[in-house]
Amino acid sequence: MKIIETKAAPNPRRVRIFLAEKAVEIPYEEFALNIKNIQSDQFASLNPMRQVPILVLDDGEHICETMAICRYIEEIHPEPRLFGETPIEKARIEMWNRRVELGLFFAVAQAFRHLHPKMSEREVPQVADWGVANKSKAIQRLGLLDERLRETKYLAGDTYSVADITALVAVDFMAAARIERPQEFLGVARWYEDVSARPSAAA
Amino acid sequence: MKIIETKAAPNPRRVRIFLAEKAVEIPYEEFALNIKNIQSDQFASLNPMRQVPILVLDDGEHICETMAICRYIEEIHPEPRLFGETPIEKARIEMWNRRVELGLFFAVAQAFRHLHPKMSEREVPQVADWGVANKSKAIQRLGLLDERLRETKYLAGDTYSVADITALVAVDFMAAARIERPQEFLGVARWYEDVSARPSAAA
Repeated sequence: MKIIETKAAPNPRRVRIFLAEKAVEIPYEEFALNIKNIQSDQFASLNPMRQVPILVLDDGEHICETMAICRYIEEIHPEPRLFGETPIEKARIEMWNRRVELGLFFAVAQAFRHLHPKMSEREVPQVADWGVANKSKAIQRLGLLDERLRETKYLAGDTYSVADITALVAVDFMAAARIERPQEFLGVARWYEDVSARPSAAA
Repeated sequence: MKIIETKAAPNPRRVRIFLAEKAVEIPYEEFALNIKNIQSDQFASLNPMRQVPILVLDDGEHICETMAICRYIEEIHPEPRLFGETPIEKARIEMWNRRVELGLFFAVAQAFRHLHPKMSEREVPQVADWGVANKSKAIQRLGLLDERLRETKYLAGDTYSVADITALVAVDFMAAARIERPQEFLGVARWYEDVSARPSAAA
């Protein structure tokens, strides 16, 4: 097995943190996400969506999509459970993971893709108005997470889960998208200090 | 248990098809997605993200997010398995479901939200250039699904799965977004005829 990834990109970091929490080691192979490589036939043959990370199994099958990779790892290395154990735990974690992904993470990514000069070749057309709109959306959605994190230790409740990994990577990605985290989000601040102090956060 | 939904919206339809495939009946309660209701405190208390569908459990807990609801149903009514059974089946289905969601479904939704006059109060600001860009993205991503469906019966392989439900709803949603399905996508056409003939498609 190996993982084809790009060290600096946010989605591969989600997988690295996930593996670190489970103390599972899989070799990484760096793929430079420049426009020439992205447009290459080789990349399309690795993943027709032209995205990293890609988990390459020993029989050569490729599993793409961050959450599909993490779920596969959870199946073959169940402990500690980062997607939950009982039906209701699993539902809560999935709900919060998606709220973070489709809310905060997505808005930050859109702001980055549509406003950052270095994305001009990869996001065509860049639509600056859409990028600007997503800066506000990101703050609004971070505010919803803040309300939650004033009440619970982690996003899905008492236990650290994949939803916290997605949120940590999204919050750190805000710097690249030039979105400042509001000081008054005390729930997020308390949680951020906690999750970013875990050894896995350095992965 | 009950499901709060909006009959005409695409995400609630994903849950209805999912339940129909499992022959599980849960009562539905209609929520009118007009701007007054969306902005109401009542809706925020049901779901801070202000989205449908919402699964209300017998103890009053709310499970939001379409995929969290479907996964919860899969846990308590496992057969027929729509998320797969073995680790590799689960990974393939999750990969394809996400490729459809984050690719086609998302692009169609953005085109609809940013170009349709009736969304002007709900998507603020509407960014027409972004809506137009997503019409092209939707066709490009449908083309990737077409390549797959020329090779396999269903998206994740030989067996119908939640990825096909997401794709069927996304393809039908193209009409509302005024995106025409290219005639030359013969793989999609063959698959569409198959999945839309299943009784669940009428759900």
